Order: sequence, then structure tokens, then C-alpha cells
Amino acid sequence: MSGPVVGVGADLLAQAVADQAVDVIRVDWRPPMPGTEADLATVALDPDRPAANATALERVLAVRARLVDVVPAHEALGLQPGEFLHAGPPIAWERASGPLRGALIGGAALEGLVAEPEDAVALFESGTSVSLEPCHHRRTVGPMAGVVTPSMWMWVLEDPATGARTHCTLNEGLGKVLRYGAYSPDVLARLRWMNDVLGPLLQHAVRAADPVDVTAILTQMLQMGDEAHNRNRAGTLMLLRDLVPAMVTSGAAPADVAEAVDFVGSNDHFFLNLAMPACKLALDAGRDVPGSTLVVAMSRNGTDFGIQVSGTGDEWFTGPAQVADGLYLGDFGPDDANPDIGDSAITETAGLGGFAMATAPAIVRFVGGTVPDALATTRRMREITLGDNPRWSIPVLEFAGVPTGIDVSAVCRTGILPQINTGMAGREAGVGQVGAGLVTPPAGIFPQALRRLAALARERAAARTPS
Amino acid sequence: MSGPVVGVGADLLAQAVADQAVDVIRVDWRPPMPGTEADLATVALDPDRPAANATALERVLAVRARLVDVVPAHEALGLQPGEFLHAGPPIAWERASGPLRGALIGGAALEGLVAEPEDAVALFESGTSVSLEPCHHRRTVGPMAGVVTPSMWMWVLEDPATGARTHCTLNEGLGKVLRYGAYSPDVLARLRWMNDVLGPLLQHAVRAADPVDVTAILTQMLQMGDEAHNRNRAGTLMLLRDLVPAMVTSGAAPADVAEAVDFVGSNDHFFLNLAMPACKLALDAGRDVPGSTLVVAMSRNGTDFGIQVSGTGDEWFTGPAQVADGLYLGDFGPDDANPDIGDSAITETAGLGGFAMATAPAIVRFVGGTVPDALATTRRMREITLGDNPRWSIPVLEFAGVPTGIDVSAVCRTGILPQINTGMAGREAGVGQVGAGLVTPPAGIFPQALRRLAALARERAAARTPS
Repeated sequence: MSGPVVGVGADLLAQAVADQAVDVIRVDWRPPMPGTEADLATVALDPDRPAANATALERVLAVRARLVDVVPAHEALGLQPGEFLHAGPPIAWERASGPLRGALIGGAALEGLVAEPEDAVALFESGTSVSLEPCHHRRTVGPMAGVVTPSMWMWVLEDPATGARTHCTLNEGLGKVLRYGAYSPDVLARLRWMNDVLGPLLQHAVRAADPVDVTAILTQMLQMGDEAHNRNRAGTLMLLRDLVPAMVTSGAAPADVAEAVDFVGSNDHFFLNLAMPACKLALDAGRDVPGSTLVVAMSRNGTDFGIQVSGTGDEWFTGPAQVADGLYLGDFGPDDANPDIGDSAITETAGLGGFAMATAPAIVRFVGGTVPDALATTRRMREITLGDNPRWSIPVLEFAGVPTGIDVSAVCRTGILPQINTGMAGREAGVGQVGAGLVTPPAGIFPQALRRLAALARERAAARTPS
Repeated sequence: MSGPVVGVGADLLAQAVADQAVDVIRVDWRPPMPGTEADLATVALDPDRPAANATALERVLAVRARLVDVVPAHEALGLQPGEFLHAGPPIAWERASGPLRGALIGGAALEGLVAEPEDAVALFESGTSVSLEPCHHRRTVGPMAGVVTPSMWMWVLEDPATGARTHCTLNEGLGKVLRYGAYSPDVLARLRWMNDVLGPLLQHAVRAADPVDVTAILTQMLQMGDEAHNRNRAGTLMLLRDLVPAMVTSGAAPADVAEAVDFVGSNDHFFLNLAMPACKLALDAGRDVPGSTLVVAMSRNGTDFGIQVSGTGDEWFTGPAQVADGLYLGDFGPDDANPDIGDSAITETAGLGGFAMATAPAIVRFVGGTVPDALATTRRMREITLGDNPRWSIPVLEFAGVPTGIDVSAVCRTGILPQINTGMAGREAGVGQVGAGLVTPPAGIFPQALRRLAALARERAAARTPS
């Protein structure tokens, strides 16, 4: 069963929008994904499932993310020299894609592990003094390549009710940047300025100001044309509004403050790196509920697309990452694009991004598609989610909450895949961003997860049977 | 004839929205306004009309408003002690409404013309040392009471192509503020801080920064849930983004800069006072085209609602201002509300505000109504406008431009009145804001204007006839 469909009342517009979305997505009844019938039946009959999903979703929706600190990764996460975090499920250098390799190379240079970036290739090939680990394993999310090194400054978000924390680096902007696999001298110079000037300044401001309510900014953004994955314009401006007074009175040189404000204000995506850990903070609260079919992470390393599910612990279900369909920068084209990469699909996992496209129709000029598609996508995602988030509502859909909580069994039953909108990295290390577009996970990972959920359901059933 | 209806293509959503808006507004054919048939025929047959309207609209749409300075009114407008500007068509103290009187009283106190605000009543009753004049007569617009006194600092906007300029005071925020008729000590203290600290700081920043492109910010706002009359959230944040770096490096005390940033950032309506003069700058370019039926100003002084029309020069056509229907603050109710007041309907005159409500559905939580109403309103306004503005587009309507250029003859022919959304002032002097809502002009002013247009058309026809 999919979650409840939000009642939009009998108003003309809502009905018209709903009707047409239905026209679009229900042209044909879709059979379940091939080979999932038996597992679907097992999971559907699992007596623990309804309460488990209700509990998991309730925990996700209860989380409030507040920005409480900004500190370097070595301090926030205990990250040691030679330790590298990356986006997506686990992967070794040998299978890493171009943009992930490019970001690792740049990260090694930033940390001074090599004299020249190119020397890092041998470092990672030998593997003796470096290690790779997913961001998700360290309460962290990273956009695109998602590489985190010890000196990089990180946002620290906390749920005041539980004290749980998540982390993310500071956003570098678009184009030729590390997270898209670029590592040229200008990329490294920008990262050094972020380490030396921006990070300490933001730390002062965050510690001096009242904790910024990231969840509340997300609420406002959705009323201001942002879907919080590839549009974060209003969010970035609200963050500036909240932090500038404390930056100004920090005692820092006015020229540094002005440069920092200009840097943040010129980067419409700056807030993405707060939206992502806010979503992870919420979803982490939904982990590890036995019987729950809730997806708690969707993530890509540029080679593999992986999901984690509440009822299956830390196991990753992976398949080949797809290339997005979208719009390209300058002379770039489809042949230049790497397969899907980044932890940023955590936004869709929490009901934002592609799931909230109805509230951000202007995004079609960045990721492609049409305005009716954007509205229909939000509607279609209701078919595969457990509920909606009343805190994050979409005005044009009469303030209906965003569809939230991807249900593995609903995906397998309907064949409808989660819709992600995403940036596209160049497939060669060093290139940077080549475009932005729309993409879905590889279909096969959901039946994989369902199979494991069914096996666990049978184990629990057997344990209940008197011996 | 109404202007061209923007083609929205065959896409499902656009068609659905269009269909339903048509359902809403075309339930019955509406007869022309009573008594207008002969004048409508005369104006319809005026051979100068089509080209005159095309010229007027083209001039309006060509204007770009840039923020070029911030100076006190005595410097910007040559305003002398005892001279008061106010919103709306001309009015004397005797007929002035409560909120206009309250704002005049506060203005007199601010200028030191009286020792106590209450003493100002006698000053205005005698009328010997004070004068009242509409803002519109001095290339200025004022929200709500719109009172301008010589010491108040003003935004100065300029069209770089022509050098034409318009002006507006700085926005004080909501609630108990002068423009809503309040004049208590805290209101005057805030105005003095604006005169002493905020104005000079903004002057430095505006002069040091590149000219802020107000027209371009309006373009962005419409993609961010603002309609630029009662939602100016994104606009305010973009203005801050553009001015903060220069404020920081101005040499001003950091505490003053921080206070100013906090003041602006806490007032979602701050940008209204830039949106309004940007609209006036555009519409002033459309004035004085013989034969044009384009409305170039809609304005209210709290007693009278007045319009000016391109083809009729500086003449005001006036009727009784209506009370808005909307939502009230705290314990206030309909009996507390003053009739419609302010020059802010210049936004609707330029295609924003009520005309752009489809792009700002969240506004229904502030001014009342429903989301479908908001979408239908933009559609309905196409029936009475000469065209649309491709620069200011509405993403959810597939980037259709806002309906722009109210046509007196189309209003008379259809009986459809321009839709305005507005703040509501308390009817007693000193109260301040009591709510916000939806309102229309008094219907009778359009047949008045049409009559004058018809008379002028006959005069031109007679002049063409060989004698």
C-alpha cells in the first residue's frame, strides 16, 4: 500500500491538476516489477510492517534541524590525515569514476599529501596510506563527489530533541569545483580561502547568533520557488540574512566579511549543503525499525547507486548509476556526462528535490522538462511514499505537504521509480560540471531490498511460531 | 478590445488552468457598464487608439529601473518645511481619513513643526503654514498614507535610457508605523533612526555598489513566490545581498551595520518601496499619448480612489475608496478598517500585485482568498489588459508574462474591475495596521475616464475634418 494521498478538496485548480497528473501517470495499469510477486506478498502480510512504517515516518517528521556549529572535519568527525570521505555507497579507487577520482586528487593536494595533484594517482593506486569511506557512514552527506578531507570546514546540524548530529562541507559554487571533479589551481585556491577565511568567519557567526532553524528555512523556501536540491536561492538568502549581523560584528576585517557575503550571495546553491544534512538528520531518525520498508538513504558514488532501508540496517542495495537526461552547459553534451553521483538524493529521500518540483516550476529551465511535468512528478511520487510532510507544504497544490518516505514495496508494486533532479559532472577527472538534469535509480535495487525485507519478515514470523 | 491573450500552448496544465479560469469568469456574459455604450463605440472607432495603445504599452515595457541614489526628500524633490506629500489623488485635511491624518500628524512632529503630535491638528486645520500635495505630482509614490516630509530619505530610481527618475521613502515595517497612521513615540523614534543611521548607510552602499537593477530583481521575485505588492520577501533578501558588501566596507560602525541589516532582513515588505517607484517609472513613460486608453496610475488617499489615463493627461477620475475584504490582525475586525489607501496600487497598474497572484499562491494566507482564486485572478486580468510583460513571467503558467496595461475601454466593456491586494489601515488616526485583503476600485471611475476619452476622440475627429 502506498501512503495516504493528501486530500486537496474540491477546488477547481487542485482537481484540474490532480486529474491531469492522473491522466499522465495512470494511462496504463503497471504490473509489479518482474519477479517481485512472492516477496511483495510476504512483505504485505508482515504484521509488523504497518506499525513499523508509521513509527519510522513519525520519527523522520519529528526531527528539527538546527545549525549549531561550523568546525573542520578533523574536529567534527575525528577525520585523520589520509582518510577521505566520499559520496555514495562504498567504493575503491579501482572502480571510482572520473569525477570522484578528480575530487580525491584535489583533496590529497589540498591536504598537502602530494606536491602536485597528479602525484595523487599513485598514492590512491597503492592505497597504503589512504582510505576511502562513505560520508553516510560518518553522519555526513556530500554533494556530487562528496569528498571530505580533514581540513575542510563543515556545517554541524543538531536535532535539539535528541542531540543527534549530521554534517556537510561548505558549498564551493558551480562550474569548475572540487565536488564536480575539478582540481585546477583556482579550485584549490578557493578551497584554501574557504578553509582560512570563510570557515572561521562562519564559525564565529554561527556561534554568536541564535541557532539557525534549517527546517524552518526549508519551510519558507518551498513557498519561494526552491525545491532545495537544485534551487536553493531563497534558502541561501535567508541564511545570509540570519548570519550577516553576527559576521559584521565578529571583529573580522570588513573586506573579508564583504568578500564572504559576496561569495555566498553569488552562489544560489550555497544552502544545498544545509538542506542535505537536514534531510539526513531527519532520515537517520527513521533507521533500524524492524519491518519498515522506508528508504532512509539514496546515494551515488558515480559508479553505483545505493539505497539503505530502515528495516535492513546498514546494508546497501546497489546497481549501476544512470546518466541524467537534462540540459548541458556551453558545448558539453551527453557524451561528456558521468553517471549520477552524490549524496544529494538525500533531499528526494526526504520529500524535497524532485519530489517537490511542483513548488519550483522555474527549475525546468535548469534541469529540463516542462512545467506540467514538474507538477505531475510531485503527484506521481505520492504513489510510492508513506505520507506527506505537513511542515513542508506546496502553496500551488493548496498547501499539500511534500510526498515523504519512499516505500520499497510501493516502488516494486507500481514500478514507479523515485524522481531525482541533479547536477551532472564531467566523466573525466578535472572537468567539473557539464549540466543538470533528471534521473532515476536503477530499478533493480528495489527488488533487491524487497527480497531482504521479505527474508527478514520470514525470520521474524518463524521466531514468533512456538517451537 | 482587450489585449492579446498569451498563448499558453497545448500543455496539460496550462490548458487545465485556463479552462477552469474561463469556467470561473465566463459563467455569464457580462454587459458593458451601464451608460457606457455610446462612449465605448466612440472610443472603439477612434482611429488613433490602436497605435496610441501600442505606443504607450511599448514605452512602459521598455523601461528599466535602476537604483542610483538614496537622499533626503528635501534634496531629491526640493521639498520645503511645511510641504507634505501624500498618497492618492489631491485631498484637503477636512476630507482626509484617519490614517492619513495620523501620518500627517506624525510627519509634522518628525519635522519639529510642533512640540507634541497632537498640536499638529490645529496646524493642519488652519492650513496657513502647511500644504498637501499628491506624491504622484512629484515623481513619487508612497505606500498607504504615503506621507513624505523633507527629512525622510528616499530611494531614487532611474531609467538609464532616458534619465527619468522616480522616488519613494524607506519602508518602516508592518504594524504600528507612520504609513498606517500611527505616530506614537516608538514610531517617531524609528523614523529618526532611519533618518540618522539607515538612510546615510544606504546612501553610501548605493553609491559605492553597482546600480541595483530593480527591474531584474522583480523578474527573479516572480519566480520566488513574490507578487511585489504584499509579498516582497525574496526581493528584500536580494536587495540585502546586493547592498551588504558595500554597507560592510562603508566605514560605518559595525553595530550600526548589523542593526541596519537586521532591520531590513526582519521586514519582508522592505522591497515594496523599490517595487513601487519601479512601476511608476515604467508607467510614467506611457503617459500623455493622445488616444491611449491605458491606465497610468491607480491610487487612493483613504477617502477617494483615483486613476489617471494616458490619453487624458494629469486629470484624476475619482470615486469613493472601498474597504478591503481580507484577514485581520489580532482582535481587529471589519469595523476597524479604513477604506483603501496608498499609491501601492501602482504595482497592479504595472501588472504585479493582484495581477500576478498566480505566481504567489502563498499570499492567500496574508490577504485571504484561495489558491484557485489566485490563479484565476491573473487569468481574469488578461481580459482587461493591453498585453503582457515578457520580462516578468509566471513559471507555473508556463512562463506567461504578467497581464499588463489596464485598458479603460476593456474594463467598461466587460465590467471586470482590476484586482488589488492591499494592507488595511485602522480607520482611526494613530492605530496602525489592522489587516490585509483584496479590494477593487469603485466601478464608476472607469466610465468617467471613458467619457473624457470619448470627448477627446471627438475633438480630434473634428480637428481632422476639413473646415
